Amino acid sequence: MNQTARVALDGEYDEAQVPLLLRRRGMAEWADGRVRILDRRGLPATVCFIECRSVEEVAIAIESMAIQGAFTLSLAAGYGLALVAASHAGPLQTLPTSLDAAARRLVATRPTGLALSRMVAECIRAAQQAGPDKEALTAAIVATVDARAQRLARQALATARHALPLIANASAILTHCFADRSLLYLLLEARRAGRTLDVYCSETRPYLQGARLTAPAVLETGHRATVITDGSGGLLMRSQRVQAFLTAADRVCTDGTICNKIGTYPHALAARANGIPYYVLRQSGPDFESAGEDDIKIEFRNRKSVLEFMGIATSAGGVDALYPAFDVTPPDLVTKIVTDQGVFDPRAIDRYRRAELGPDVGSGAPPSRSTA
Amino acid sequence: MNQTARVALDGEYDEAQVPLLLRRRGMAEWADGRVRILDRRGLPATVCFIECRSVEEVAIAIESMAIQGAFTLSLAAGYGLALVAASHAGPLQTLPTSLDAAARRLVATRPTGLALSRMVAECIRAAQQAGPDKEALTAAIVATVDARAQRLARQALATARHALPLIANASAILTHCFADRSLLYLLLEARRAGRTLDVYCSETRPYLQGARLTAPAVLETGHRATVITDGSGGLLMRSQRVQAFLTAADRVCTDGTICNKIGTYPHALAARANGIPYYVLRQSGPDFESAGEDDIKIEFRNRKSVLEFMGIATSAGGVDALYPAFDVTPPDLVTKIVTDQGVFDPRAIDRYRRAELGPDVGSGAPPSRSTA
Repeated sequence: MNQTARVALDGEYDEAQVPLLLRRRGMAEWADGRVRILDRRGLPATVCFIECRSVEEVAIAIESMAIQGAFTLSLAAGYGLALVAASHAGPLQTLPTSLDAAARRLVATRPTGLALSRMVAECIRAAQQAGPDKEALTAAIVATVDARAQRLARQALATARHALPLIANASAILTHCFADRSLLYLLLEARRAGRTLDVYCSETRPYLQGARLTAPAVLETGHRATVITDGSGGLLMRSQRVQAFLTAADRVCTDGTICNKIGTYPHALAARANGIPYYVLRQSGPDFESAGEDDIKIEFRNRKSVLEFMGIATSAGGVDALYPAFDVTPPDLVTKIVTDQGVFDPRAIDRYRRAELGPDVGSGAPPSRSTA
Repeated sequence: MNQTARVALDGEYDEAQVPLLLRRRGMAEWADGRVRILDRRGLPATVCFIECRSVEEVAIAIESMAIQGAFTLSLAAGYGLALVAASHAGPLQTLPTSLDAAARRLVATRPTGLALSRMVAECIRAAQQAGPDKEALTAAIVATVDARAQRLARQALATARHALPLIANASAILTHCFADRSLLYLLLEARRAGRTLDVYCSETRPYLQGARLTAPAVLETGHRATVITDGSGGLLMRSQRVQAFLTAADRVCTDGTICNKIGTYPHALAARANGIPYYVLRQSGPDFESAGEDDIKIEFRNRKSVLEFMGIATSAGGVDALYPAFDVTPPDLVTKIVTDQGVFDPRAIDRYRRAELGPDVGSGAPPSRSTA
C-alpha cells in the first residue's frame, strides 16, 4: 500500500478515517480505463459500484441519481470526458467534436448546479492544451479531475475549520439532505476537539439522502445521528432542541440567495422564526455567474419518484405529482455563508476573492457557452 | 335499500356522492355487535375492514393508525365502549368499573386530540343515564356515537359553506395531512358551484396520509390532486403556485394556537412569508380546555416508523430517529379559523358560542377526569 492510497483527498486525514462518501471509492474514480462510481441508490444497505465504459453510461448514472451532490457528480462527468478521449477511434482532429458532444450531454443531465459545467469546461481546456496523442489527452483530463477532487476536499477541510467556532456552543445541530464534504469534515474536526454532537438529519424525500447517506456518514464520524421526517424540523427548532441549522448549497448567488435541496427554505424560515442560526457551507464561495434568484433554474425531476417509496406506489391511479428538486432561500434567512476563505455575511459573499483561485471554482468561467 | 342507508351523515348529500372516507363504512360502524373499522393503513391499494370484538382490539386499531383523525377515531372509541357493555358478563353494578377501565385504555391511545376523551366521557354519561339492562346501556352508547357521527358531518358541511367564499378566487390550494370532513365538504361544495381546483397534497411522512388518503379523496370529489413531498410546499407558495393553505387541526387553543400534524408549522411559516392565507378548518370551534401552547402535549410515536417504509429500512443500524406526531403553530401565522358558526380571527376564537352546543363539542367537558 503506497502513501497516496492511505492519505485522504484532503491531504491530512487518513483515508480510513473519513466516511466512505468522502473517500475516492465513495465518489467516482478513474480505474483501469473506466469510470467507477459508487452507486448511492443502494446505500446504506448495499455498497455497489457501477463501471462506466462510455460517457452515456456516466450521464445515465448522474441522471438516475447513482451519484449525487453538485460537486461530486462533476467528478464523474470529468472522468466521463476522459472516457471519450481514451476510446476515440478516428483521426485526432475529430476528437474535439466528440468531446464537445459529450460535454453537452453531460451538462444537460443536471441544470441547477454549476460545478458540473465548470468541470466540463476545465477538462475541455486541459484537453486543448494537452497533446499530441489521445493517451496524453486522456491523462490530462484525468489529472484535471484528480486535482479537482483534491482541491474540493482541501477546501472542505478549510471550510470546516472556519465553521467549527460557529457551533462552539451547540450540542445538537440540524441538517437537510446530504451536506457533503464540508459538514462531514466539520464533524471530523469536532471529534478531534473531543466533542460529540447530536446530528438531526431530515430524511429528504423522495431519495432519502438524509436517511440513507447523511445519517450513516454522521455515525462514521463518531457523532450521534437521528433521522426525522422532512416536516419535523420546525418543531425541533421551535422547541430549541437544536442550536444550529447547516446545509450545503447547490447554488449561491452573488447577492447571497441560496438554492439547495427542496425543503431547505421552510427549514430556513423556521430557523429565522426561532432565533436558530442558519449556516450555509459553501467551500468554493458564490457562483459569480448567478447574480440572484432570477438566474436560478429550478430542476423538476420525474414526478413518479414522489408517487412511490422505494419502488412501492403510495397513492392512487389518477393522482398527479410534482417534484421540484430544489428551492430558493433569500439571503435575509441565511446567517452566514462559510467558505474556505472564511465566514461571510450572505450580502457580502461577492467579496469572496475569485481572483486568487483557479478558473474552476466560483470564478465566472463560462459555464456552458464553451460546450453549448 | 332504505332512506338512512342512502343519505350521507350530513343529511343532505347522497352517501354515494361523498368520498369513501366520509361514509359510515369509511370510518367506524357498529355492525352486528362488533365495531367495524376501515383499515386506512392499506389505502388506497386495498380496502379492508377490521372487525373488533373487544375494546382492546379497538384500542390497538387506534394506536396502530388503522383509523386516524382526532374526530373520526373518537367514533371508534365510542363504539368500543358499547362493546364493553354488550359483552359484560358479571352483575350489572360492576359494569361502570369495566367501562371506566376501558375508557382509560382508550383515552391513553392518543393524548394530543381532545375529541377522544370527550367522546368517551359522553358515552359514560349516556350509560349512566340509561338502564336498566346491558342491552339498553349498549343501545344508549351506540346511539350517542351515531348522533356524534351525524353532528360531525353536519358541522363539517356548515364549516365548508363558511369557507367557500374565502377561496373564491383560488384556482389551486395546498393542504397537509388529511384535513378530513370539512375540507372534503368544501371541495364537494366547490364542485356544486361548478369549480374545479388543483389541490396540492403534501405526502405527510411517515404514514403518507396526504398521498394515501387525501389525494384519492380529492379525486373522488371531482378535483385534480397533485402529491408533493413534505418539503415542497415552501417553493409552491414562494412561486405563488397556490393561493391558499388549508388544514384541519387536532387541537385549537382558546388563544388561537393550533396543534396539527407535524409539518404544518413550516407550511404556515411559508404561507405567512409569501402572503398566502392559512385557513384552519375546525368545525367544532376551539378546545376550551386548552388556553395555549403550554396546555398541549405533543405525542411522540414509535421512532421505527421514521426509519422504514412498509417494512423496508431506510437507514443504517445505529441510526436513531425521532417522531413527533404534531407541531404547534402560533396564532399570528393563522389567517382565519373556520367553524360551523362562521369565520373567526384566531385571536377571537374564544368567542365561539360554547353555550349553544352540547357538552361534547368544544365545550369544556372534563376531558379525562371523568375516566381517569
